[in-house]
Amino acid sequence: MLAKIKFFFQKKGVLSEDDLFFNAKNMFSFDDILQIIDQAVCQLKFERKPQSLYDPIVYTLSLGGKRIRPAFTLMACNLYTADINHALMPALGIEVFHNFTLLHDDLMDEAQKRRNQPTVHLKWNRNTAVLSGDAMLIAAYRFIGETKPELLKQILDLFTQTALEICEGQQYDMEFESRSDVTEAEYIEMIRLKTAVLLACSLKTGALIGGASKQDAEILYRFGIHIGLAFQLQDDLLDVYGSPQTFGKNIGGDILCNKKTFILIHALQRASAAQKARIAYYQKTDGEASYTPDEKIAAITSIYDDLKIKELTQDKMKHYYLLAMDELKDLDVSQDRLSELYRVCRSLMNREK
Amino acid sequence: MLAKIKFFFQKKGVLSEDDLFFNAKNMFSFDDILQIIDQAVCQLKFERKPQSLYDPIVYTLSLGGKRIRPAFTLMACNLYTADINHALMPALGIEVFHNFTLLHDDLMDEAQKRRNQPTVHLKWNRNTAVLSGDAMLIAAYRFIGETKPELLKQILDLFTQTALEICEGQQYDMEFESRSDVTEAEYIEMIRLKTAVLLACSLKTGALIGGASKQDAEILYRFGIHIGLAFQLQDDLLDVYGSPQTFGKNIGGDILCNKKTFILIHALQRASAAQKARIAYYQKTDGEASYTPDEKIAAITSIYDDLKIKELTQDKMKHYYLLAMDELKDLDVSQDRLSELYRVCRSLMNREK
Repeated sequence: MLAKIKFFFQKKGVLSEDDLFFNAKNMFSFDDILQIIDQAVCQLKFERKPQSLYDPIVYTLSLGGKRIRPAFTLMACNLYTADINHALMPALGIEVFHNFTLLHDDLMDEAQKRRNQPTVHLKWNRNTAVLSGDAMLIAAYRFIGETKPELLKQILDLFTQTALEICEGQQYDMEFESRSDVTEAEYIEMIRLKTAVLLACSLKTGALIGGASKQDAEILYRFGIHIGLAFQLQDDLLDVYGSPQTFGKNIGGDILCNKKTFILIHALQRASAAQKARIAYYQKTDGEASYTPDEKIAAITSIYDDLKIKELTQDKMKHYYLLAMDELKDLDVSQDRLSELYRVCRSLMNREK
Repeated sequence: MLAKIKFFFQKKGVLSEDDLFFNAKNMFSFDDILQIIDQAVCQLKFERKPQSLYDPIVYTLSLGGKRIRPAFTLMACNLYTADINHALMPALGIEVFHNFTLLHDDLMDEAQKRRNQPTVHLKWNRNTAVLSGDAMLIAAYRFIGETKPELLKQILDLFTQTALEICEGQQYDMEFESRSDVTEAEYIEMIRLKTAVLLACSLKTGALIGGASKQDAEILYRFGIHIGLAFQLQDDLLDVYGSPQTFGKNIGGDILCNKKTFILIHALQRASAAQKARIAYYQKTDGEASYTPDEKIAAITSIYDDLKIKELTQDKMKHYYLLAMDELKDLDVSQDRLSELYRVCRSLMNREK
């Protein structure tokens, strides 16, 4: 089995035999898996014409990112088998899809930077962002389709359901911009759709390909939802309290665009009349602002501090993290096979970017 | 078998038993097929939230259109079997995909009208056009996936290949706008990608579901390419020489936006120096135009007339039409089963809209 995987990765040119750390449990480390994915992403070829359609796709994929989704697919597969090669193309499909959503979201949000590089609609133009994004979504389906024939229908249906949910999440997110009465429940549902379902889909896809039972695949799906919600709340926190050196985006971006995050929703709920007025003053978008962006970030952050919103958000994050951990206990997998997944989740919960 | 189809359509609420004309050869007429498709499109439900994401999809599909692509899928299936129900969902998937391309193309082209109704980015806004279009593309895949499991991989791969080619065709089309040296060969390749491959895919998909041999499926694919090229050349002609009452779009739209159609490419090749200068005068986009749109259309059309471009285009159209007809002779299907397809193609070649 091991020889077979090594042969596969050598044939595909992904990894040489020496590169592979492969321990006695026939399990890949997270670093192995990231290496497999990074090399596979680098080697993705879109040898089609016109190049002008495919260049923005290659550019978007080259910007990097944490590759957590495809890593989760391979890790979930690896819980059940050492033969993770069948999961590689669907894992790449999920990563390509994720990057497609970033490309079109950046267009809709008029974002200027993605991972410190200019966004596609600025580096090229809006039409290129629309059309290359469309081609990227179609390319994602092509990779998703390269799976075991007997699982194709199930994996395709899961992916399509997930993809629709992500569009729904983005639609809610855009609609929340013009609303001031977004509730916590609505926000959680929005981030479940926009973020968590793709992590859940990544895990379930890998599990199915690895041969997991239907029950285990469902457990890993629910684990993905909970851990996805925890990750997004942490992202909201990093946007306010992260370090500019490590975060990769500008700190305070959500504050500047008045984004209805968990943090702002709770701040508005807890705020006194005076604090509400102060938030409203800094959120006014009509007319000339009489404050600098940095002053706005400092003022709003100071209100968050006074209201102890950081602690509240951390509690909620921990709540979802523990729900996720609880799910893993029910898996029909020996706990020692889960140690790498536990370790990765702990480490991601303590991330600074 | 007949009872089974009727049961299917009744169960789905598509047609009552009395609605179905079903002749002794177990073949549906084109009108039957259009009725099946129209009712199925009307009954497509997107019972998901938020409605704001799905309303533009329902709107786009409700605008009508000739439904030639899904009709070709069902007709190709019906060449081999009376049991065309398995082809209905993929046929709808192809129609949803086609309408998705119109939605995003209209956004990119900044078109104001589609079938005499406001385009989605004007009726809603640009972001809605991006995101609802994305959801529509994903929904198309959902319908495509509802096919016989043993054919899923083949039909999915064909659809994905076709969808990528259509993006490539649109990219070429946009790039041709800023070029003045587009050749006939480049133009034919562009319309092959942008238009013909989807007709070809429609036919091949239906044939495969109907149980056609690999060879027959390929013949119908090539037939689709040739007839698709003929249809597009006719569309180019109708844009200049059609009747405003029946065409549904404004006559002269291609002339007004200096679109590099087969007609313009050949006019530029045949034009005298004086005629070239006259075309260039009317194509200038900088500064204020000293002529009305109607004057421009009349002037350019008059040059086309002098150069006999209509006759040249009709010859080319007939060339592809005959190539298409030639393909059908090689099918492993009795000629009397092909009579409806011959009749429909003849009628579409003489269409005025």
